[in-house]
Amino acid sequence: MASFDYESYITDIPDYPEPGVVFKDITPLFADAEAMRRTVKDIADHFRDAGVTKVVGPEARGFMIGVPVALELGAGFIPARKPGKLPRETYAVSYELEYGTDTLEIHRDAIQPGDRVLIVDDLIATGGTAAATGKLVQDVSGVLVGYACILELTFLEPRKALAAAGDQELYSLVKVQ
Amino acid sequence: MASFDYESYITDIPDYPEPGVVFKDITPLFADAEAMRRTVKDIADHFRDAGVTKVVGPEARGFMIGVPVALELGAGFIPARKPGKLPRETYAVSYELEYGTDTLEIHRDAIQPGDRVLIVDDLIATGGTAAATGKLVQDVSGVLVGYACILELTFLEPRKALAAAGDQELYSLVKVQ
Repeated sequence: MASFDYESYITDIPDYPEPGVVFKDITPLFADAEAMRRTVKDIADHFRDAGVTKVVGPEARGFMIGVPVALELGAGFIPARKPGKLPRETYAVSYELEYGTDTLEIHRDAIQPGDRVLIVDDLIATGGTAAATGKLVQDVSGVLVGYACILELTFLEPRKALAAAGDQELYSLVKVQ
Repeated sequence: MASFDYESYITDIPDYPEPGVVFKDITPLFADAEAMRRTVKDIADHFRDAGVTKVVGPEARGFMIGVPVALELGAGFIPARKPGKLPRETYAVSYELEYGTDTLEIHRDAIQPGDRVLIVDDLIATGGTAAATGKLVQDVSGVLVGYACILELTFLEPRKALAAAGDQELYSLVKVQ
């Protein structure tokens, strides 16, 4: 378990984006240079010896944490984007969200067979986005190393969704019960 | 001028997103760890002695380059987002794009008076997004240090738009004539 007090940099927003949902706002963590540096290093350290060659981050907050983790690991960064945002040929996957459904795409040439891929996002809630991204990576013959996030909403049981997609590890800095 | 061949990592996509427009795809640059590392270091080096305390990056590709530049400078990162994406009180600015109009928001408490702010995006085309973000920063009493981007479309004369918003410097790695 991380010793740094990441939770003090995360703000609860009740009833956002809809009644009954508590939104976890991670922007204060990124606004603080030292908290951001520790976050990136903590995640990267955990996967330092896993031979990661590509980090995939889902749009848009996955870009904020995925890029610096990729740089820290000496890996490339691949954005997983909403439909219509990537200009070249893509693979797509649709999946259920905590509220609604969504689709993510990656460029067809973004991952080479044998690439060792880590999926990084700010928050893993139901695990739907992460599991779908993991499926996309494996569909294009990437080796899925694992998942990492800042916040894991354990009460939504994301590890069940991820286990259904494979036995890769999920590493989270903060677990919200 | 940068000595690294950044252009070889940028792919031209003709007629995207609409006929007559050549889209500049920077995803190959981010997919390459060394090219990404050099990009971030080059921009950060240019502003190393400018006392930057906050980097602002517009959604979504501005997150990809803004966060690592902020980390390299020891500054915090502030996302400028599309309406409805930030959960707390925001300031907003609307502006014209190359094709259409758009609005960006930042959290009201994201920038403190006296913060020295660098605006970073992947691409500066007409300069509309950057100038609007610069206005937002100055509206909340931030000191606008300058603008940085990977690609500057000089034929769209972004420096004219930025000059109208103040005399801050624009630093770009690649100029597209």
